[in-house]
Amino acid sequence: VTPHTPLGTGKEFDAIRAMVARWGASADGIGDDAALLDAQPGESIAVSTDTSVENVHFRRAWLTPEEIGWRATTAALSDLAAVGARPLGVLTALTVPPSWRPELDALSSGIGAAVAAAGTRVIGGDLTSGGELSITVTVIGACTRPLVRAGARAGDDVWVTGHLGGPGLALHAWQSHREPPAAARARFARPEARIAAARWLADHGCTAAIDVSDGLVADARHVAMASGHVLTLHLDDVPCVDGADALAAAVSGEEYELLVTAAAGAIDAGAFARASGVALTKIGAVASGTPGVVVLRGGNRVEISAGHDHFSA
Amino acid sequence: VTPHTPLGTGKEFDAIRAMVARWGASADGIGDDAALLDAQPGESIAVSTDTSVENVHFRRAWLTPEEIGWRATTAALSDLAAVGARPLGVLTALTVPPSWRPELDALSSGIGAAVAAAGTRVIGGDLTSGGELSITVTVIGACTRPLVRAGARAGDDVWVTGHLGGPGLALHAWQSHREPPAAARARFARPEARIAAARWLADHGCTAAIDVSDGLVADARHVAMASGHVLTLHLDDVPCVDGADALAAAVSGEEYELLVTAAAGAIDAGAFARASGVALTKIGAVASGTPGVVVLRGGNRVEISAGHDHFSA
Repeated sequence: VTPHTPLGTGKEFDAIRAMVARWGASADGIGDDAALLDAQPGESIAVSTDTSVENVHFRRAWLTPEEIGWRATTAALSDLAAVGARPLGVLTALTVPPSWRPELDALSSGIGAAVAAAGTRVIGGDLTSGGELSITVTVIGACTRPLVRAGARAGDDVWVTGHLGGPGLALHAWQSHREPPAAARARFARPEARIAAARWLADHGCTAAIDVSDGLVADARHVAMASGHVLTLHLDDVPCVDGADALAAAVSGEEYELLVTAAAGAIDAGAFARASGVALTKIGAVASGTPGVVVLRGGNRVEISAGHDHFSA
Repeated sequence: VTPHTPLGTGKEFDAIRAMVARWGASADGIGDDAALLDAQPGESIAVSTDTSVENVHFRRAWLTPEEIGWRATTAALSDLAAVGARPLGVLTALTVPPSWRPELDALSSGIGAAVAAAGTRVIGGDLTSGGELSITVTVIGACTRPLVRAGARAGDDVWVTGHLGGPGLALHAWQSHREPPAAARARFARPEARIAAARWLADHGCTAAIDVSDGLVADARHVAMASGHVLTLHLDDVPCVDGADALAAAVSGEEYELLVTAAAGAIDAGAFARASGVALTKIGAVASGTPGVVVLRGGNRVEISAGHDHFSA
């Protein structure tokens, strides 16, 4: 544990002090110009950054401030899961408009809870005023054998963790001015970063991985293009949350479940579930051919368009 | 050099592709869930994140898009200089409103130029829509003996790089609806991260360091509080840009020059200037006592209040 460096005077530093107090043991070595971390010999450093903006990634009416903080942090941590890294620390850059200042403690609480759930710490960040709430979380991790999108091989099985469709169901309900079913809402509001699950998969022969953020089919396409292979997905096998249709589940984004490939027969889903507490379902296979995704339902090919595009508006 | 991972379809990925093309050799290994880096054995990893928001940190009327990208990137890189780290890579999280999309290429160009000037590369990031332009740059570096704020010792000299006051002069001119003098404007629009200068100082006995972002006196106070000592600064010795008064220079923020301490006589300012091309001026000393900053002008004590506070409004 690194002691915090004393912070200066003024409201901005007061606000940072309150956040650090809220984080307690989940904050470490705050206050110098840069945070310092050490990897183990032979480990690579993995880094990723993820921004959540009000009215783009969420609406204030949908979520509590704690949930907004949790979700933004988990979205970033999920990228460490996708490469099979163990987290070393988190940087939180917050832009907080005046109307959000009373919620800063609750936002911090959600950030701290997500950081603690991943077994890591807030080691630095930035706090500024602005016109809209924006949370950019940068995650730093370490790994000896990183998982990458490009590793899928012909003959591999395709697997997915958990149950899909919840965030899509929740979004659809909110957009229809209805309150979502509780389970679907929880999947949107309080997703989990599959950090430990990913490390188990990396240790048991997983060949490629991605976290499901754009939607199952869109993310499978990323793996297919990076690996130079065809991924065939069986919609009938996609594990869905209660109330979700497989077609909707296949395009539901911001799931933060893992899509992985592994040599046929290499993975024991039961052993995975016992170790991680998370379901693992075989949903397809990798083959040679023009890189892309083929989606089958009842043996017939289904065309599914791409996932989220924040720039399409 | 790590090859880029193929990006998906849609306008968001098209925009990222255009940025990566603009960066050319200044981008490396873009497109997987996390970027991977390797430090040398015995090195610590240094990380820092910095957000620049339109109408908080700059105004569109003041700067070109290239300058906005350069400045936001340099502000973050300066934190690596402050700890004496060599840069390993940069993550850029951009929130781009529709009205700014035509300027994305120019913003990227400024980001790429600043990254290249620091001898490093863009290794990942995020791109999202939003209501206001916001640039969060995360820098990752490595160092064997990090400089920290807490290292100042009684008897040390206090030094500062470069010439101060430019950003303050430029801001004052813009706020008075005048065009700033060219030299002052350049110090605001195109600051430099003192990366190589800091590594020279770290190798030549520097005991503590900070980059001047809140203002010379406010940042000296950070070093004083972290080190538990008194820093006495002689205003008459503060090196100023043409047209700046020492009092104004002492509270001018976002300078990105370095304030460092070193044992008396340890540093040869001439050798530093020859090695780095940057001036180094002795402006004070460190002593035992109640931690804080004493500012003297012509032998008389001057009271100077704290620096920037984005939360004070």
